[in-house]
Amino acid sequence: METTKKSKVLVIGGTGYIGKFIVQESAKSGHQTFALVREASLSDPVKGKTVKSFKDLGVTILHGDLNDHESLVKAIKQVDVVISTVGRKQLLDQTKIISAIKESGNIKRFLPSEFGTDVDKTVAVEPAKSLVFGAKRQIRRIVEAEGIPYTYVVGNCAAGFYLPSLAQFQPRLTSPPRDKITILGDGNAKVVFNREEDIAAYMIKGLDDPRTLNKTLYVNPPKNTLSMNELVTLWEKKIGKSLEKTHMTEEQVLKNIQVYPVVPVYVILSINHTVFVKGHQTNFTIEPCLGVEASKLYPDVKYTSVDEYLSQFA
Amino acid sequence: METTKKSKVLVIGGTGYIGKFIVQESAKSGHQTFALVREASLSDPVKGKTVKSFKDLGVTILHGDLNDHESLVKAIKQVDVVISTVGRKQLLDQTKIISAIKESGNIKRFLPSEFGTDVDKTVAVEPAKSLVFGAKRQIRRIVEAEGIPYTYVVGNCAAGFYLPSLAQFQPRLTSPPRDKITILGDGNAKVVFNREEDIAAYMIKGLDDPRTLNKTLYVNPPKNTLSMNELVTLWEKKIGKSLEKTHMTEEQVLKNIQVYPVVPVYVILSINHTVFVKGHQTNFTIEPCLGVEASKLYPDVKYTSVDEYLSQFA
Repeated sequence: METTKKSKVLVIGGTGYIGKFIVQESAKSGHQTFALVREASLSDPVKGKTVKSFKDLGVTILHGDLNDHESLVKAIKQVDVVISTVGRKQLLDQTKIISAIKESGNIKRFLPSEFGTDVDKTVAVEPAKSLVFGAKRQIRRIVEAEGIPYTYVVGNCAAGFYLPSLAQFQPRLTSPPRDKITILGDGNAKVVFNREEDIAAYMIKGLDDPRTLNKTLYVNPPKNTLSMNELVTLWEKKIGKSLEKTHMTEEQVLKNIQVYPVVPVYVILSINHTVFVKGHQTNFTIEPCLGVEASKLYPDVKYTSVDEYLSQFA
Repeated sequence: METTKKSKVLVIGGTGYIGKFIVQESAKSGHQTFALVREASLSDPVKGKTVKSFKDLGVTILHGDLNDHESLVKAIKQVDVVISTVGRKQLLDQTKIISAIKESGNIKRFLPSEFGTDVDKTVAVEPAKSLVFGAKRQIRRIVEAEGIPYTYVVGNCAAGFYLPSLAQFQPRLTSPPRDKITILGDGNAKVVFNREEDIAAYMIKGLDDPRTLNKTLYVNPPKNTLSMNELVTLWEKKIGKSLEKTHMTEEQVLKNIQVYPVVPVYVILSINHTVFVKGHQTNFTIEPCLGVEASKLYPDVKYTSVDEYLSQFA
């Protein structure tokens, strides 16, 4: 089923978490591989290193940017297949890739950024509904409307994101728990966990394959399809120990989505470290040449004291 | 100390969380008030309502955008004072406001977006160090280098953000806890909590005041300056009940900043709701006309099973 000549591949977003695996797999499997990289990424210590590793694999680095239409078209004209691995916040910016593919007119296959659950089979709640699933679905519909040949690769759960913590994100554990674990819902829903390298391997296999043209390529290997309860049992067997299980009911999950902060907890916590641990709001004297204190300067303002504020909740 | 004629005020970012309070206070206190609003905000259900409430207060709505230099200059030319209330992610974009103020040449006072701890007195850890404190500090230095008259308003902790949960963010409580509470560090650092309306009142008082020119205006009212331990005691008195206290040591705080997820927990949890509670990865049959399964299509790929993956941690 392999075509005789392997397609030339452009990866957009290649220095990102998942993109790295795709670029590596594409180059290693003998595709002439190009990575579109922003000039700014070269001076970034982490991304600069990634770019160097790409060069060592024979990848051609093209300088460009999603927002630079000319650079996009120029890059796309050199290849047969475009793979987008842009991050969550740039999903809708993929319309710019679609425009450039239309203008170039030479692309045999486009693989938009997916790397998750099938967005056409999912009924999600907010904020994932709009931020993730809605955005990916919108891109799919535009690709189809424009008549661009596509493959949607549904990679399901990336193992490196889910398995080291056994899906314990609050806080996110760096190795699986050995005493207690929280299970969402009844823990019987079947989930698919795939190693990033494997998702990349199937993706690169599929991009020249007529059997995946204008289709969704599901990465659902049977050995990787298991429920959270089965996952926990598997882990318990490995460590020879039973974990204390707490279930978070669906009702509680939905309520927690509302009450968890919109700003990432690690940002809040680093602010709170300066405020609550270090006391940086009060551990200095206001120098009169540089600062003035408001309640002294404007004694006519009847400010609400903390005491009064808290009374509304008691 | 009041000037005879009140300055005309432009608020940039007025439909945001803190901006609303500033626009309202400016208009109510008799300043001719202008709000720069993006056209897109008008069709947003929440922001559209806010804009309507501004109009009811006599605020002049100007259409424009940080990225539209001409619209910025045009807006700035109509006023004496510019207040920025842009959000965390737009802090560095305030260089665009600074350029427009330089070009306009008529601004008597600029109040950049602060609404937190004094960034020149804070030694924060990442990510707040760069994302918040570093960005605000950078803007201060540019304002000073450009010779723009300024006031930095240090509002410290916004009550509406901190007090309803008594700083319990994981998950964020919607009313103060009545059984147990986590305290960062020893709980003795003195913190300042101010109601948003009061921060706005002091800010608007200060913008025409020669005593605040090129100075920092600290909002540190004595009744609102208290330690976390004192805050908890105050709350315990109100509910006539003692809370079970857990201290998170500084070491643990610093470790947690590393392990908390970078993506907001509420986004992760809403994704996990579809995956772990609803089972959307596996609760459908792949229609052959639309999809293909990778491990069946490419049996030569030796994928890593979940079982094998977990072995590395056991």
